[in-house]
Amino acid sequence: MIDGLAVGHHTADGEGWLTGTTVVLSADGATGGVDVRGGAPGTRETDLLDPRALVEQVDAVVLCGGSAYGLAAADGVMAALAADGRGFPVGPNAGEVVPIVPAAVIFDLGRGGVFAHRPTAEFGARAYESAKKALAGTGRNRRVSDPAIGCVGAGTGALAGGLKGGFGYAEAAVTLGDDTPVARVGVALVLNAAGSGVDPASGRLWSDRAGALDSPDTVGRVALSAARGRAGRPFNTTIGTVLTDLSLTKAQAGKLAAIAHDGLARAVRPAHGMTDGDTFFALSSGRRPQPSDPPAAVGLLNRLLEITADLVVDACFAALTAAQTRGGLHCYRELAGLE
Amino acid sequence: MIDGLAVGHHTADGEGWLTGTTVVLSADGATGGVDVRGGAPGTRETDLLDPRALVEQVDAVVLCGGSAYGLAAADGVMAALAADGRGFPVGPNAGEVVPIVPAAVIFDLGRGGVFAHRPTAEFGARAYESAKKALAGTGRNRRVSDPAIGCVGAGTGALAGGLKGGFGYAEAAVTLGDDTPVARVGVALVLNAAGSGVDPASGRLWSDRAGALDSPDTVGRVALSAARGRAGRPFNTTIGTVLTDLSLTKAQAGKLAAIAHDGLARAVRPAHGMTDGDTFFALSSGRRPQPSDPPAAVGLLNRLLEITADLVVDACFAALTAAQTRGGLHCYRELAGLE
Repeated sequence: MIDGLAVGHHTADGEGWLTGTTVVLSADGATGGVDVRGGAPGTRETDLLDPRALVEQVDAVVLCGGSAYGLAAADGVMAALAADGRGFPVGPNAGEVVPIVPAAVIFDLGRGGVFAHRPTAEFGARAYESAKKALAGTGRNRRVSDPAIGCVGAGTGALAGGLKGGFGYAEAAVTLGDDTPVARVGVALVLNAAGSGVDPASGRLWSDRAGALDSPDTVGRVALSAARGRAGRPFNTTIGTVLTDLSLTKAQAGKLAAIAHDGLARAVRPAHGMTDGDTFFALSSGRRPQPSDPPAAVGLLNRLLEITADLVVDACFAALTAAQTRGGLHCYRELAGLE
Repeated sequence: MIDGLAVGHHTADGEGWLTGTTVVLSADGATGGVDVRGGAPGTRETDLLDPRALVEQVDAVVLCGGSAYGLAAADGVMAALAADGRGFPVGPNAGEVVPIVPAAVIFDLGRGGVFAHRPTAEFGARAYESAKKALAGTGRNRRVSDPAIGCVGAGTGALAGGLKGGFGYAEAAVTLGDDTPVARVGVALVLNAAGSGVDPASGRLWSDRAGALDSPDTVGRVALSAARGRAGRPFNTTIGTVLTDLSLTKAQAGKLAAIAHDGLARAVRPAHGMTDGDTFFALSSGRRPQPSDPPAAVGLLNRLLEITADLVVDACFAALTAAQTRGGLHCYRELAGLE
C-alpha cells in the first residue's frame, strides 16, 4: 500500500444483497484530483477538486455501489471523520470541521435480487472503520496491507461485459533513469463496464499484459462469447482512485486521474460509453518530494503517468481474475476453464 | 411560478437551529444545466449535467444549508421521489428508477448556536413534500404559488457581508420584439455571500435596480458599515436555480446557469471568491417551444439570458429585503432604518 493511504471495504453479499462500499482514506490529508469521462456519472464533491478551487486536502474518497442512491455512503464517512475531529476547519472550536469526501458510484442495483438493497450511510461508516484500522496498523517498519480484491467493497456487485467484475488493486514503484525507486503508485478500482475485458478472437483478457493466463480452449471461448451476448441492461460505470506518495499539485493530481482512463481504454472495449459513468480520482499523500530540478521533475511525472495507465490495466486484470461467480453472474476463470 | 416547476422549503429556525432545505421540483422532468464559479463549492450530481452526459431529465434540484453535510438532504429527496415512482428507469419493474437530483449547499454551520444542527435526509424529504403539495395545487386555471422568501428553506441561516441573507425569488416574462410574452423565467436563490449587497458610499443595495428603497440616513450608513466590519468567518456560498418554461437543450440550460453569475456579480461585491462556492443550476420545463426560425430563436435566447441576469439581481434584492434579524445577525431593513 502507498505510504499515507489505506483502503477499507464494507461488503454486503447474500440474502438479496450484492453491493458494497470502499473507502480510500488518507492518514493526514491528501492532494486530490478527478477526471470524469463516462457518459452517466454519479458523483459528489467533484467540483471542489477543480485546481482553481480552495480545498487542498482530501480526507477520503468513497467508491460505492447503489447508483446515485449509494452517494449516501459519503454521509456516513463524513460523520465518522467528523467524530474523529478530521476535516477542513471552519470554526474556532475543536470538532468544527467539514470533512472533504468526494465520491463516485457504480450501477449495481438489483444484482443481489432486491432492487432496494443498496448502500447507506452505515456502509460508508463501516468501510471507513476498516480503512482506519488498516492505517492504525502502521507503526515503525510496518506497512499498511494491500486491500482485498475481487467481490468485495464497491466491487461486490460489479459486472463487466457479461462477466462478474469486481474490485482490483495494483501497485508499483516509480523509478528514475537509473532504476532508483523514488515514489510509489497504486490503482484501486471497481471494474463494472458495459464493455468487455475479453478479446473475442482469443478469449484472453485484454488486461493480461504479462501473458499470465493460458488461452482458453474452444469450449471456453464459446462460453465467454455467450456470456458477452447475455450482458444485461446497459448500466455500468468503472470508478477508481490512483494513489501515490509523490508530492503533487492539485492540477497534477487531476492529470494523474485523467491518465487512468488510458488504462481503462486498453483493458475494456468499448470504454467510456454513454451508460458508463467512468470516473477516476487521484490522491497524493505527498510523502515523497518531487525532484527540484525541473527537467527531472517532468521526467518523473511522465514516468508516473505511464506507469499509472499500465497499473489501471493490471488492476482490471486483478479485478477480473479475482472475481468469483455469484448466482447467474459468472466469472472469467470459470467460463474460460481456468479453475 | 414557472409552469411545470414548484419550490418547497423546510425550515429549522430556533432551539439552536438556523438552517434549512429548499427543493425545486419538476412536474414531469426538466432539462438541467449547472455552472460552478465559486472557489469552495459543495455539490452533488453536477457531472451528469455536462451536456455530453446521458441524463436529459432532472427530477429535482436541492439547495441546502449545512455545508457538505447538507448534501445528505438529497438522499431524502431521492428516496421520496423513488417512493413516488419517479426517476430514470433502470429496470423492467415499476419503481426501478434512479431519481436525478443534483444539489448544492451553503455554509451556515453553527449560526443557530449548535454546530451539529444541520440538514439531514429528513429535511430533503420534507422540502420535497412541500414542493409536491404546491404542484398538486395546479389544476386547470390554477397557478402554482411563488415560494415564500426571506429566512426560509436553505436561506434560513444565510448571511451576506455581515447582514442577514436569505432566500429570494423573482420572475418575469420573456418577450419578443413586439412585447409578446413567449416564455417565463424565474430565479430562486440563497444569498449567502462573503461580499456585501450594500454600496458603502450610499448605504443602498446594489440590487435595488428600481430605486424602490429610500437611501439610509447617516445613522443607517454607520450601522451598515459596522455590520460589514463585523462579518464573521469567511465561509459562505450563494446558490440558486434558474427556472424557465422555454424549451432548452442541455447545453443551453448550462449557458442559462452560467449567465446567472453575471447578476450575482452585480448584486454582491466581491462575488465568486475562494470561500464562496457560488453555484447556479438551470431547469427548463420545456412547456414553451423555441421559435423555429433560427434568428428568432437566437434573439429569444439572448433576451432570456439578459433577463435572467437581471432577475438574479432582483432575487438578491428580495432575499436581502425579506430577511429578518435572527439573534446577532441583523437584517438590512433594521440597520438601514427602513422598518
